[in-house]
Amino acid sequence: MSTDRSRPPSPGRPIQLVALDGIPEIVEGDDLGAIIGNAIQRSAHVLPMAVDDVLVVTQKIVSKAEGAVVDLTSVVPRPEVVEFAERWDRDARQLEVVLREARRVVRMANGVLITETSHGFVCANGGIDASNVGPASGSIVTLLPVDPDRSAAAIRAAVRARFGVDVPVIVSDSFGRPWRWGIVDVAIGVSGLLPLEDLRGASDADGRIMRSTVRAVADELASAAELALGKAAGRPVALIRGAIITRGEATIRDALIPRENDLFP
Amino acid sequence: MSTDRSRPPSPGRPIQLVALDGIPEIVEGDDLGAIIGNAIQRSAHVLPMAVDDVLVVTQKIVSKAEGAVVDLTSVVPRPEVVEFAERWDRDARQLEVVLREARRVVRMANGVLITETSHGFVCANGGIDASNVGPASGSIVTLLPVDPDRSAAAIRAAVRARFGVDVPVIVSDSFGRPWRWGIVDVAIGVSGLLPLEDLRGASDADGRIMRSTVRAVADELASAAELALGKAAGRPVALIRGAIITRGEATIRDALIPRENDLFP
Repeated sequence: MSTDRSRPPSPGRPIQLVALDGIPEIVEGDDLGAIIGNAIQRSAHVLPMAVDDVLVVTQKIVSKAEGAVVDLTSVVPRPEVVEFAERWDRDARQLEVVLREARRVVRMANGVLITETSHGFVCANGGIDASNVGPASGSIVTLLPVDPDRSAAAIRAAVRARFGVDVPVIVSDSFGRPWRWGIVDVAIGVSGLLPLEDLRGASDADGRIMRSTVRAVADELASAAELALGKAAGRPVALIRGAIITRGEATIRDALIPRENDLFP
Repeated sequence: MSTDRSRPPSPGRPIQLVALDGIPEIVEGDDLGAIIGNAIQRSAHVLPMAVDDVLVVTQKIVSKAEGAVVDLTSVVPRPEVVEFAERWDRDARQLEVVLREARRVVRMANGVLITETSHGFVCANGGIDASNVGPASGSIVTLLPVDPDRSAAAIRAAVRARFGVDVPVIVSDSFGRPWRWGIVDVAIGVSGLLPLEDLRGASDADGRIMRSTVRAVADELASAAELALGKAAGRPVALIRGAIITRGEATIRDALIPRENDLFP
């Protein structure tokens, strides 16, 4: 794993979060790298691209471009799902898709279905979502991309080819958390940056050794990007300028706790 | 609960994350509102204060100013803690303090002690931390502030009195999460903004009703602020300019899932 720690921004220099404008409705087969490149090209705020830029691309448009969608009208839910869905006023066909995409069920109670996906993500509804899938598509849901790291790498390669700058890319999605209401955006795919910033052994401002500080920087970048995008604004790509990240080739799997190490299996 | 939704920033306008410089080492009894006001006053980047500013203040300096610290040399750990600490190479006195501050133990395994604090936060080590507590203070740990909402309100009042602008304040801390390595900053106290942005019933970009989208905006703001602060930089206060928030009088308890509703009790 090669790493190259970017220089810290000078004190007081702001980090900027910018939502890219001009991303059209995405459909299967769209060249997302080209479309994001066009949006960058048209944005006076972000050109020229900078060495401390990071792009955050929300899962929904990645899934749509890659055809990772399911038409619920074709789905026949299994009986136990029908019962659960009726009891909790959920769409049984959507829950059936969640189970099909799952490696295992973590919790299924209170109307909530939490699974571990094939990628290893533990999340509600397997990351499957019906909102923002396009007009007149009431029965279409998006799945998670098959390989979100690869999706991020493809966008990164397209941006590098077009602008000559190697900009790390994060694919993000909105996850709930135990104990706290509300969703936050986290990273589900990365390319060009390490998802974790390992400060163990570094000394803090007083020279004290910080033993257990591993910062989930890709998740913090995803959450920050969400502030610029909003959930209902039709702006699915954000550019973050000036954040401290560690460049390197990595996978989001580096950020996932193996089941045997987790206290909430 | 009075609310006043701030106007969305115009498209393409960046959100800015700025670390305030010039916050000195904080000691018990310090007037944090005055100290943060001084830091604002000296920062050309952030003056004049704006109506869409949010201040994020990290827990450590709040606890230190409020004297929410314990000297471990005065702590005698109970026997079961000594055994756990020896097995997992932890400081038994610190774990004893975690238990004293806890409402209940959620998990105690693999060297990790997860408790519910008196505030209702579920987190590792009860939010008690030994890093960044000041030079030559090897045995001092910080506790969480007694009432982080009140701490936030006091800083907000001081800023309003000095600059004539009502700036919402978040007190943040770094929490781990199940299933994902690494810590992210979340809100542990709020004043002047709602910690949750409830988009249920709002329509998304396609006019589809989003049924279950409650965004943990205070947590996302805390995570974004952390990007500007870093963990080892000695900069404990960030200003976020241009984010969409909903103003209102609230408490961080609004963001906590009651135990009876949680799937991971």
